Amino acid sequence: MTSTSFAPPPDRARLRSHPERAVQDIDFLHEVLNEALLCHVAFAMEGQPFVLPMAYAYRDRRVYLHGSVQSRTLRHLAEGHPACIALTLLDGLVLARSGLYHSMNYRSLTLFGWAERVDDEGEKTWALEAFVERLFPGRQAELRPTSATEQRATLVIAFQIEEFSGKRRAGGPKDPPADLDWPCWAGELPLRLQSQQARRAESCPGEAPPPLLRSPAG
Amino acid sequence: MTSTSFAPPPDRARLRSHPERAVQDIDFLHEVLNEALLCHVAFAMEGQPFVLPMAYAYRDRRVYLHGSVQSRTLRHLAEGHPACIALTLLDGLVLARSGLYHSMNYRSLTLFGWAERVDDEGEKTWALEAFVERLFPGRQAELRPTSATEQRATLVIAFQIEEFSGKRRAGGPKDPPADLDWPCWAGELPLRLQSQQARRAESCPGEAPPPLLRSPAG
Repeated sequence: MTSTSFAPPPDRARLRSHPERAVQDIDFLHEVLNEALLCHVAFAMEGQPFVLPMAYAYRDRRVYLHGSVQSRTLRHLAEGHPACIALTLLDGLVLARSGLYHSMNYRSLTLFGWAERVDDEGEKTWALEAFVERLFPGRQAELRPTSATEQRATLVIAFQIEEFSGKRRAGGPKDPPADLDWPCWAGELPLRLQSQQARRAESCPGEAPPPLLRSPAG
Repeated sequence: MTSTSFAPPPDRARLRSHPERAVQDIDFLHEVLNEALLCHVAFAMEGQPFVLPMAYAYRDRRVYLHGSVQSRTLRHLAEGHPACIALTLLDGLVLARSGLYHSMNYRSLTLFGWAERVDDEGEKTWALEAFVERLFPGRQAELRPTSATEQRATLVIAFQIEEFSGKRRAGGPKDPPADLDWPCWAGELPLRLQSQQARRAESCPGEAPPPLLRSPAG
């Protein structure tokens, strides 16, 4: 897949503020989709916007979401209404010499598209395994297999990325020159989502160590 | 403020899936609003949903957002269209014995309401300081004050929370009893957003230590 397989940013994906932060390449798209643990899915019902955090899996230009077949949200999305997905990696806080020059370092994606129900059993099985496998590679093989009944009770939808807008800010503050002598601390406070000591379930007597979360959060 | 100052959850805020995870009390609202570093703001323009990450400040029932007076997004929101804000704290990953019982631990809010432009200079000044002050208490007093010109070029809007839906999952996996003997690791992998070694700006020669990020991320 090359960047030319996506349309150039049209009006809805064009960055108006801080255009210097725009990142439109496919490598950046993959980087954020690989690293984020959840996404925020937005849609509108009768003019009311909704936004919800969801786990996801990704392949090619499709972002997979799943839930109960009774999920009102997934069923609405599967009707193909326009939707929008945000993925945001907060990399740090930027401390400047004045309040309005404070900022955040981040890598973010806004994806525009629409979703459809995944009926192909092979694609559905792949997606359901990918939700776990993308975080804990190799774990699927150790799990009790999903039953046909469970799979039938689960709705998987695929959000087709029609366009995307990537944005990145990195580095320290960008104070105006006249502020550089102001006597306060200035710089960047990096942030990282880190895994802590794993807690084994009481019902799990095994000696095996917990699986490792795929980096970089691991 | 008591919980009765908010309407009971109406249809748009009612949780249909996992109603046992619902948390509607004001303490939970404040906990998440105090701890989150950014929010995701959703709105619709001509039927197209958008969702964007933004910094925020909070007081009473108002979530403050800010940006350039030229911001298309803020100007649209300030017109009072229905909007929705998500705040999500990812607390951990839950590893079960089968794929579909895997889950995430989190505390989340979905806020429903509408925004208006903040024209009152006192409220605007408070909000602009709160964006920094809520993360680094005491820092505002050390900063070069915001100029009148800067403040005029900045649009602050207040999103009025009309209703909210809180959701929390905590603890280990909830495998069905028949799965408890399955020989794989099961439990919880807690996650925490942690600040790393601060990076002083090259232009900042001072000896003072960097300000501390207010817990719990700090």
